[in-house]
Amino acid sequence: MLKLYYHPATISFAVQVALEDAGATSEGEFVDFRTNAQRTPEFLAINPKSRVPALITDRGVLTETPAIMEYIARTHPAANLAPLDDPFAMAEINAFNIYLCSTVHVAMAHRYRGYRWADDPEAIKAMTAKSPEVVADCFRVIEAEYFRGPFVMGDAYTICDPYLYVLSGWLDRDGIDRTQFPKVDAHFHMMRERPTVKKVMADWGM
Amino acid sequence: MLKLYYHPATISFAVQVALEDAGATSEGEFVDFRTNAQRTPEFLAINPKSRVPALITDRGVLTETPAIMEYIARTHPAANLAPLDDPFAMAEINAFNIYLCSTVHVAMAHRYRGYRWADDPEAIKAMTAKSPEVVADCFRVIEAEYFRGPFVMGDAYTICDPYLYVLSGWLDRDGIDRTQFPKVDAHFHMMRERPTVKKVMADWGM
Repeated sequence: MLKLYYHPATISFAVQVALEDAGATSEGEFVDFRTNAQRTPEFLAINPKSRVPALITDRGVLTETPAIMEYIARTHPAANLAPLDDPFAMAEINAFNIYLCSTVHVAMAHRYRGYRWADDPEAIKAMTAKSPEVVADCFRVIEAEYFRGPFVMGDAYTICDPYLYVLSGWLDRDGIDRTQFPKVDAHFHMMRERPTVKKVMADWGM
Repeated sequence: MLKLYYHPATISFAVQVALEDAGATSEGEFVDFRTNAQRTPEFLAINPKSRVPALITDRGVLTETPAIMEYIARTHPAANLAPLDDPFAMAEINAFNIYLCSTVHVAMAHRYRGYRWADDPEAIKAMTAKSPEVVADCFRVIEAEYFRGPFVMGDAYTICDPYLYVLSGWLDRDGIDRTQFPKVDAHFHMMRERPTVKKVMADWGM
C-alpha cells in the first residue's frame, strides 16, 4: 500500500488530492514540523532531503512533487489524470508542474525560508520583501501564457490542476491579490468545490 | 526537425548531449546573453520565461530541462536513455533530475543571480557568500544517498547523467572542491570522455 508522508500546509496536499483522484489506496503519516520531525534520523532515512511529500511504494520511496504526480497518473491509468501515451502532451504537463516546483514554489519559499540561501538577517528580510513581486510575475506568466482553461491544460483535468490549486491558494497568505489573475482565480474557486479536494481538507482537518 | 535554443554556459548543454545520445536530428540556435537576446520580444514569444533551453518540436515549444530530457528519451526509445515502461524507475529518474533543477541549480543560481530574489546589493552579496555551502550540502546528499555508480542510476546510462555532469562541472567555477565527492568526481571525468559530450563541446566551441 502507498503511504504519504505529509504536512497539510505544504505541497503534499496536491499529492493527496491526486491520490484521491486516482482512487489509490493509501495511508497518511503526518510529519510534525513543530517538533522538527522532518529532521529526525527516522525521517531522514526516508527522505534525506528533509522534505515532504515523500511517497512510500512497494518498490521504495519517491520524492519531488512533479515526479510523484506523474507516477500516480501512470500507475492509475483508468483515472485519466494525464495523456500518458502522448510524449509531447506529457512533457507540457511536466514542464508546467516543474515550473511550479522550481520557480514559483521557490519564489514563495523566499518569503518564509530565506535562511536556506543567506545567513544575514537583513538579507533574509530583503528576500521576504521581494517575494510577492517575484511570485506575482510568475502568476502573470501562468495566466497569460500557460493556463488554457477551464483546467490548466484545457478541457481535461490533469495532475497540473491540484498542483496549481495549492500554490494559487497560498497567494492570499502572501498578500497577493489573486483576482488580478482572473483565470487562475476562477480555477481556484472551481477546484475548491471538487469532491476530492473537499475530502482531503476534511481528512486533514483543514 | 527539432531546434534547440541554447547557450553553452547553461544547462542547455545537458539537453544537447541527450539529443546526441538519442541520435536525434536537430539544429541549434545560440541565444546571446551579452546582447540580452533572451529578453527580446522574439525570444519571449518562444519562451515567456526568458530562459534556455527551449526545444522547438513539430507540436510546439517545450521548456524545463527535466521535462525535455524525458521527452527526448520517450521519443527515441531505441536509444535506451531511460526505463520507459517502468513508472517507478522513471519517477526515480525524474525525481533526481527535478532535484537538480529545483534545488541544486537554484542553489547555484544564488551565487550569480541573487537579483532574482532580492533588490538590496548587500542581500545579493549574502546569497553569493552562502551559495557554495548550500551547493556542497546538495552534493553531499547526492554522493551519499542517490548516486549508484558508475552512472547515476547504476549500470545503465540515463538522462540523469548529462544533467549531473553539467552541474558537477560547475563546482570548480564556484570554488567547491569536487574531489570531496569521489563518486560524483569519477562520474564527471568518465562523462567528459564520452563521444557525445566531446562532440557537443567541439560543436559549441568549448
